[in-house]
Amino acid sequence: MNKLKLGMIGGGLGAFIGDAHRRASRICNDYELVGGVFDVDYEKSKEFARNEGIDLSRCYESVDDLIKSELQLPAGKRMEVVAIVTPNALHYPFAKKLLTNGFHLVCEKPMTMTVEEALDLEKLVAEKGLTFALTHTYTGYPMVRQMRDIIATGALGTIQRIDAQYYQGWINSIIHGTGSRITGVWRLDPKHAGVSSCMGDIGVHAFNLIEYTTGLEVKEVLSDLNPVKENIELDLDGTVLLRFGKNLKGVIRASQVCGGEENCITIAVYGSKASLKWAQEDPNYLYMLSDSEPTKIFKPAHGYNDRFAEESHTMPAGHPEGIYEALANIYKGAAKSIRGESFIPGEFPTVHDGVRGMQFIHSVVKSNTDGNVWVKVE
Amino acid sequence: MNKLKLGMIGGGLGAFIGDAHRRASRICNDYELVGGVFDVDYEKSKEFARNEGIDLSRCYESVDDLIKSELQLPAGKRMEVVAIVTPNALHYPFAKKLLTNGFHLVCEKPMTMTVEEALDLEKLVAEKGLTFALTHTYTGYPMVRQMRDIIATGALGTIQRIDAQYYQGWINSIIHGTGSRITGVWRLDPKHAGVSSCMGDIGVHAFNLIEYTTGLEVKEVLSDLNPVKENIELDLDGTVLLRFGKNLKGVIRASQVCGGEENCITIAVYGSKASLKWAQEDPNYLYMLSDSEPTKIFKPAHGYNDRFAEESHTMPAGHPEGIYEALANIYKGAAKSIRGESFIPGEFPTVHDGVRGMQFIHSVVKSNTDGNVWVKVE
Amino acid sequence: MNKLKLGMIGGGLGAFIGDAHRRASRICNDYELVGGVFDVDYEKSKEFARNEGIDLSRCYESVDDLIKSELQLPAGKRMEVVAIVTPNALHYPFAKKLLTNGFHLVCEKPMTMTVEEALDLEKLVAEKGLTFALTHTYTGYPMVRQMRDIIATGALGTIQRIDAQYYQGWINSIIHGTGSRITGVWRLDPKHAGVSSCMGDIGVHAFNLIEYTTGLEVKEVLSDLNPVKENIELDLDGTVLLRFGKNLKGVIRASQVCGGEENCITIAVYGSKASLKWAQEDPNYLYMLSDSEPTKIFKPAHGYNDRFAEESHTMPAGHPEGIYEALANIYKGAAKSIRGESFIPGEFPTVHDGVRGMQFIHSVVKSNTDGNVWVKVE
Amino acid sequence: MNKLKLGMIGGGLGAFIGDAHRRASRICNDYELVGGVFDVDYEKSKEFARNEGIDLSRCYESVDDLIKSELQLPAGKRMEVVAIVTPNALHYPFAKKLLTNGFHLVCEKPMTMTVEEALDLEKLVAEKGLTFALTHTYTGYPMVRQMRDIIATGALGTIQRIDAQYYQGWINSIIHGTGSRITGVWRLDPKHAGVSSCMGDIGVHAFNLIEYTTGLEVKEVLSDLNPVKENIELDLDGTVLLRFGKNLKGVIRASQVCGGEENCITIAVYGSKASLKWAQEDPNYLYMLSDSEPTKIFKPAHGYNDRFAEESHTMPAGHPEGIYEALANIYKGAAKSIRGESFIPGEFPTVHDGVRGMQFIHSVVKSNTDGNVWVKVE
Repeated sequence: MNKLKLGMIGGGLGAFIGDAHRRASRICNDYELVGGVFDVDYEKSKEFARNEGIDLSRCYESVDDLIKSELQLPAGKRMEVVAIVTPNALHYPFAKKLLTNGFHLVCEKPMTMTVEEALDLEKLVAEKGLTFALTHTYTGYPMVRQMRDIIATGALGTIQRIDAQYYQGWINSIIHGTGSRITGVWRLDPKHAGVSSCMGDIGVHAFNLIEYTTGLEVKEVLSDLNPVKENIELDLDGTVLLRFGKNLKGVIRASQVCGGEENCITIAVYGSKASLKWAQEDPNYLYMLSDSEPTKIFKPAHGYNDRFAEESHTMPAGHPEGIYEALANIYKGAAKSIRGESFIPGEFPTVHDGVRGMQFIHSVVKSNTDGNVWVKVE
Repeated sequence: MNKLKLGMIGGGLGAFIGDAHRRASRICNDYELVGGVFDVDYEKSKEFARNEGIDLSRCYESVDDLIKSELQLPAGKRMEVVAIVTPNALHYPFAKKLLTNGFHLVCEKPMTMTVEEALDLEKLVAEKGLTFALTHTYTGYPMVRQMRDIIATGALGTIQRIDAQYYQGWINSIIHGTGSRITGVWRLDPKHAGVSSCMGDIGVHAFNLIEYTTGLEVKEVLSDLNPVKENIELDLDGTVLLRFGKNLKGVIRASQVCGGEENCITIAVYGSKASLKWAQEDPNYLYMLSDSEPTKIFKPAHGYNDRFAEESHTMPAGHPEGIYEALANIYKGAAKSIRGESFIPGEFPTVHDGVRGMQFIHSVVKSNTDGNVWVKVE
Repeated sequence: MNKLKLGMIGGGLGAFIGDAHRRASRICNDYELVGGVFDVDYEKSKEFARNEGIDLSRCYESVDDLIKSELQLPAGKRMEVVAIVTPNALHYPFAKKLLTNGFHLVCEKPMTMTVEEALDLEKLVAEKGLTFALTHTYTGYPMVRQMRDIIATGALGTIQRIDAQYYQGWINSIIHGTGSRITGVWRLDPKHAGVSSCMGDIGVHAFNLIEYTTGLEVKEVLSDLNPVKENIELDLDGTVLLRFGKNLKGVIRASQVCGGEENCITIAVYGSKASLKWAQEDPNYLYMLSDSEPTKIFKPAHGYNDRFAEESHTMPAGHPEGIYEALANIYKGAAKSIRGESFIPGEFPTVHDGVRGMQFIHSVVKSNTDGNVWVKVE
Repeated sequence: MNKLKLGMIGGGLGAFIGDAHRRASRICNDYELVGGVFDVDYEKSKEFARNEGIDLSRCYESVDDLIKSELQLPAGKRMEVVAIVTPNALHYPFAKKLLTNGFHLVCEKPMTMTVEEALDLEKLVAEKGLTFALTHTYTGYPMVRQMRDIIATGALGTIQRIDAQYYQGWINSIIHGTGSRITGVWRLDPKHAGVSSCMGDIGVHAFNLIEYTTGLEVKEVLSDLNPVKENIELDLDGTVLLRFGKNLKGVIRASQVCGGEENCITIAVYGSKASLKWAQEDPNYLYMLSDSEPTKIFKPAHGYNDRFAEESHTMPAGHPEGIYEALANIYKGAAKSIRGESFIPGEFPTVHDGVRGMQFIHSVVKSNTDGNVWVKVE
């Protein structure tokens, strides 16, 4: 089968997220990186292209150049899908241009800076009939997909409480001047990061994981955010109360200053009949609890899992796959969609997940700004 | 050394918490159970006394009888300390009578039904110079004490976030009619349980653990509580936003309907230099995280622990002690206090912890009733 | 119910194992410590008795004195059961005297120094019709009992492999002169410890756990033992190959020089249909594995456990009990037997377990001495 | 940088190990799969090539064809390195031919069927100056490499005990006729698998992990192997006693019939000063134990690790990488060697590791056949 011709905006030398996207695209083996705009500095962009063995004639100075040149190439050679892995503020303008010109997209989150921009992209994707995959990477893990499938069967009974957490610590050493990791400091600058640091960067992943696994919508939020230190403009920490409907409440806890935490995103969904718990740092273990039976641990590569989870893991049981394979699963799902093959809903997060994410971030910030009051997520 | 003469109110046949107190008092070996009012039904009370080998002449029909008769006994024989293990609503009236008549107390929590009652007891204890030990049992675990000691040294730097959880599931099967455990249903009845089920019974333990380990005071709370099901008057679930001061926030999450959770109380304290995490179901493991060093696991019976933690564990390393030994440590601390021996602050929770607990419960309920607004914990 | 009158040989000031026995006897509440020979130094013995509040007239200079005096007391006052917690070499002579004179026994392991002595005690116990409880404490844990019950139902299918481990590290710092713990150094001296240190002290626990949980007998052993360091006479480390019968083999691994290991005794039993794994340092978790179902975690205080496991745990689910409660369960079983009440086979290890233990230790040592050859366990 | 031209022998449709090699080669991005002999059935081989987008002119009918044709291609186009992923018996003849004709190799283990063949390959590799990478994949995990580095510094003091385990259960359902996984049944047939099933397939991984992490050589082995069931010719289970030298002993335990175990390979190395433990199913956690300090958990992507471990992990901390990334690290190391770049010893297992593996397997089988006697590993 021919590989899809992939372009990339951002992700040049030293950008770990661009590297992650490229690895994922190679793991699933449905893509071939043919060109892109890898850096705002054209010289660096070309240096990167040379290192990667990419044809320099397709290493462009700008997104506009890329669009113009690629559209002149014949169909079998032309770039079909573009991965946007720039800082947040650039997602929307580039996505809009690329969609308008008929390119399928894989886009990092948060999708845009505002809800309006998000809705605009959603409309555009629908009009154009293109594939838009948003890399909420954690939805690519087999046991997250198994969790979604179990919940969809109703096995938990009535859901009674939902609790998601995303704790990191790496910004801790930055704000206290003790760390060496400086990449990502743009995250503290509203111009580049948008209205929120913690909720925009990681809280939104917890939100997405809740809606993805349960199929429920968060209706209202009440938040209390914390910049943690003087002279920091954005939230680095916060808690968000959630309401899903009568008698179903929950909470999202997120922080970037939990010193020593690495990438501790967890979700627990408690139901009247059973409950499920999952944690990203041990992604191949899904715990099912109940009042009357021993706790069960689901793991990948077993006949007891649903087809979706099983197709999301390729090794025999006990051979751990990780974050790159999760991202590869999303790239795989996007490839099926781009090719017009059948795919399972949930194989990749869509532009609608991006809209929901922006609605979440803006509702949470508004709740905090307005004095910790309930705000509708819409 | 002579054992302290112990009486007990409540805790007769079938009451697990009374049994727990008796075991704890025997483990530390500082007490001798000599009498009490073990049941509102005098016949059952006597049956219990017979089973336990307690002199029937000291098995009383009422607390008044107990006080009157015991005060007539000579000092060396007289009951010196009384454990109150009745349903919540009876804690205050019995405690007040017993303190007034000079008995030291060990009391189950929540200490009273109202803040006023709590303050009244605090005043009485001070006036009488008696020992009042409130059984926030989790403070008796060696690794909780080690956590308190580590934080007191300042090893965490500036505390930046505090997160405590108390999830249980046993009420789940009761409200859905699928369980067999009916003891404790009084907890759903405001007459017996007070203004809150979930926060009053378990949320307050999480609150206590925060103030115990960090030495900080929660200044304000904002809560969202959930009765979960129609026709239930009290909260069975809720989340409480916490504020400790400028730039330090936190959260308490508590629920009695997390199906399959057993007794999952956890605490995490995140600081600028390091962080600590502890979970009650694996009580002998304390995790210290930092940005720059491997995660460390502290366990009991090691020279690297402080004296307080070490004195709270008697077996060599790797021989797990549990909840009874934690409660025995509190009984041991109370015994030292009653005997006028020196003890370490924190060896047993005091009447002041009881006051704080009532202030917490009532603030949380008020915040919820008033529409999820900030309420001072005072 | 009247408490059984308990005596104790050994276990005076500073002896942790004597303290453990006393706590256990108090937890189960079936015993009252009335006297004993607590130390070879009579003055220290009396000091201990004073501290414990034991009548000095029953603090004896020798076991002979104890027997003589106690036999003169009336039945309702006389010591009925004696706990032997001396160094190994004294177990047999004291046990023999006490049994001969009609005392029930609770005895520390290893029961004797030789197989002949062990068989002699077994004969004596049968003749006298007395209760003899050997404190293989780990058999008192609820989940070990649940493991035994599950295996007895045949749920594992044909057992195919058995693997037990007992790794400790505390002798490490002693032999390298870096530790402060000197108690127990008699264990390195053949005069006091017998023919083996590692296998006699801890390997035998692993052996017992295998025979206890599976109901199988080890037929033959082949061992390779290691003194680890120059000038040490006894084994501090070793591996023992096990044969149970055609097509069923296993292994015991034991070491006292695994630096940093605390008390890491584990057992895994693998069957054609399912498998079970348990580890003492997290005693309340029993893992059941199978090829076709999610791994199951059994925990105490659940309706899915057998009665034996359930009666071995008194707290609600999620309230961890530990090593003292395990030992108390054995004391409880012995009390039932002494009183002539019905009890469940397995509620306490018997003199026959002691015989098997001595057969194991001597077979293992012989295999090693004879050049790592197969030796029958008989 | 130009990618290395990679060929593959075996690994066609449905072969998971071939797929794993291809994914690994793509993850590290140093290779381009250009051709091969993917299946003994030429039609199936071509079908596979078509699916993968491989030029059919380089999909060969035999290894001889491949060699002949590729050698006629110009240097810049010619296949430089070949991955051998056939059943065991074919490794040696194909490796010999390919080495003789100047191809670098990546080869699955066990490397050959006999020790003589292994020594022959070792000689050939030396003569030809080619790169030979044996895929003992577990050596590619960052924390295994960190373990090797820590031990090399002497931080453990004198090593006192070594214990490695490799337990799987998947053959269990095959021998009992209850499973659906039939691939791999050739492993039970001596013609294809060689002299051993369990030790040849998995025990040898445990052996390799010991020599890799400690830098020590196993001098002698004594084994007891078990076919487990009637009419099975090869070992499916066994234990191997190890001797490294005076006062240092150890054990390898391996089984393919531990029902419910997935891929449970673990290693523990105990030293006089500290100890290290690692388990493949949670590969990103390395535990360091000591008598005097809290247990430490090392994880990837931290400044406290050595350079080798750090270069073996590309994501930020807390983003788990897995088995494919471990294999990719070995491919990466081989690529460096093939290109003549500097690499770290240990970046890929060499032909000498293959020789040691064959010596281990044959010594173990001989020990068992000769009646469980000591056999030198040479």
